[in-house]
Amino acid sequence: MIGEDDLVRRIRAATAADRDGVLVGIGDDCAVLLTTPGAHLIAKTDLLIEDVHFRRRYATPADIGWKALAVNVSDIASKGARARWALVALACPVTTTSDDIDAFYEGMLRLAREHGVAIVGGDTSSSPTGWFVNVSLLGEAKRAILRSTAQPGDVIAVTGTLGRAAAGLALLERDQRPVAVDTDTREEMTAAHLRPRPRVAEGRWLGNADGVTAMMDLSDGVATDLRRLCAESHVGATVTVDTLPIAEGTRRVAAAADQDALAWATGGGEDYELLVVIAAAAFPRVAAGLAQATGTTLTRIGTIEPGNAVRFVDARGGEVSVTRGFEHFATGR
Amino acid sequence: MIGEDDLVRRIRAATAADRDGVLVGIGDDCAVLLTTPGAHLIAKTDLLIEDVHFRRRYATPADIGWKALAVNVSDIASKGARARWALVALACPVTTTSDDIDAFYEGMLRLAREHGVAIVGGDTSSSPTGWFVNVSLLGEAKRAILRSTAQPGDVIAVTGTLGRAAAGLALLERDQRPVAVDTDTREEMTAAHLRPRPRVAEGRWLGNADGVTAMMDLSDGVATDLRRLCAESHVGATVTVDTLPIAEGTRRVAAAADQDALAWATGGGEDYELLVVIAAAAFPRVAAGLAQATGTTLTRIGTIEPGNAVRFVDARGGEVSVTRGFEHFATGR
Repeated sequence: MIGEDDLVRRIRAATAADRDGVLVGIGDDCAVLLTTPGAHLIAKTDLLIEDVHFRRRYATPADIGWKALAVNVSDIASKGARARWALVALACPVTTTSDDIDAFYEGMLRLAREHGVAIVGGDTSSSPTGWFVNVSLLGEAKRAILRSTAQPGDVIAVTGTLGRAAAGLALLERDQRPVAVDTDTREEMTAAHLRPRPRVAEGRWLGNADGVTAMMDLSDGVATDLRRLCAESHVGATVTVDTLPIAEGTRRVAAAADQDALAWATGGGEDYELLVVIAAAAFPRVAAGLAQATGTTLTRIGTIEPGNAVRFVDARGGEVSVTRGFEHFATGR
Repeated sequence: MIGEDDLVRRIRAATAADRDGVLVGIGDDCAVLLTTPGAHLIAKTDLLIEDVHFRRRYATPADIGWKALAVNVSDIASKGARARWALVALACPVTTTSDDIDAFYEGMLRLAREHGVAIVGGDTSSSPTGWFVNVSLLGEAKRAILRSTAQPGDVIAVTGTLGRAAAGLALLERDQRPVAVDTDTREEMTAAHLRPRPRVAEGRWLGNADGVTAMMDLSDGVATDLRRLCAESHVGATVTVDTLPIAEGTRRVAAAADQDALAWATGGGEDYELLVVIAAAAFPRVAAGLAQATGTTLTRIGTIEPGNAVRFVDARGGEVSVTRGFEHFATGR
């Protein structure tokens, strides 16, 4: 195991090139940053814990580094904001090699550079057990899109498709009795779980689009996350489950694993798609504009309602029960 | 164990009163903050891990909450900056009670309110083993005092006394064969370890004082931290160990525990005093001014030298070996 000061030197060397708005980065007690006049500061923190959020059996150190940053980038993007500066805390067992630690930062830096994020500080420690990662990410926005501003009558939409990360997790967890799917599907789905691609361009575009009234990212599944958005906005919602976009590959994995693709789509979580609420009149224009600007499909899945009931219904309007996604403390996961 | 959404509600209710510069706090994907025009943004993150940084045997949840914030407040103060907004990530075992979690936030909020810090976001998770806490703290400063700007000829000084936290840790760790010291000393020393008081007023005052050229906080002991400051400033230093301020109580505990008070002062760590570098001509004025403004003594312990050697010497100028403090990864602690 390498020494703490040596580790700081290595991280510093790896991150030295990213200096946009960074007066002082790694190496002092604190980072000193230059914010943009007139912009709001956007801040987010997220934990990634071995055997809660991932298993070392199938997640490489580079995967862990990528994902720890990706989940935060997704939150910042969901506010229509630009991610700028990351603080990275890493605790891992004393048996961890310097190669593993380098790979962790390389995975993280690959995503960071894609999105112009500088790692400006951090902390390192030994861990009595597994890996613990905490990333705090700072961004900026002229106007942040909140989850508390949805209005009755607005359209509820999502980017991309739902359930891929859950399909990937199912493939990874069943490594003792592998699920029979083709290699391309396996790779796509496991990558969705291990290396999620936050909707950065989409978030920025939607944040500037007229008619977008509320937004959040989907980390715990639409069943749970839409309820959170509605609670914050003091509104209800109706979602037509038949309209939920589910990729063919997700359905193939579900069939092969004898699982329910719809449950993955509503409750699987970790898709890091955007849940977007749009004034009804603006929806066609916003969906067309987003597709043209980013190539990403926006699918209408429901409507914001008065009241506080969040209902998932079938094509005939009958209420269906959906898996609600997991809550860490409630289930002990 | 309580649910994640319920926990967020409780934290949110507890922190709702602290709204200075907070447009959106806990409850959305991200916090939205209003920075001060013309100020630099100062950012810091720190881990606190069970059985690495504390033991649940003697650290209460309120102690953990207090200390997790205190160590970050200390870093921000050491830059002469004002601490403003905290992001708090907490992972603890599924068996943790809601009373313990409430006590954790109460301990943290007690310190937060003392220093005008708002908790604006966070993450919660179960932990497969012990408590893991990560606090990221944001502050602001017109001009941050760095550790990289010390000049040969400058005076090296420290606030308060050194070694109290190590004395406190020795008392806490030896609970099976208690060290024989009086109750007042025991309480003072254990509080120094469990509830460190960051030098906030001192840091702000020194940050505005003419003649202060460099500053950092003492988290790993002056032997290690002064070497870091010198490396960043590309200078050397000579410290006269006889001048290191050591409290009478620290000496009493060391004698009773058959330990070396000087080793605690140089290598014990966690004192969270300030290591201050001051132009020689300004030192008397700065020391007198700080004492008058805050009641805190600034003790001259050495001089910044050309070169890169950091030497600890006795009264006759002979070099002495000092304990260097611990590094997490090097020692496996």
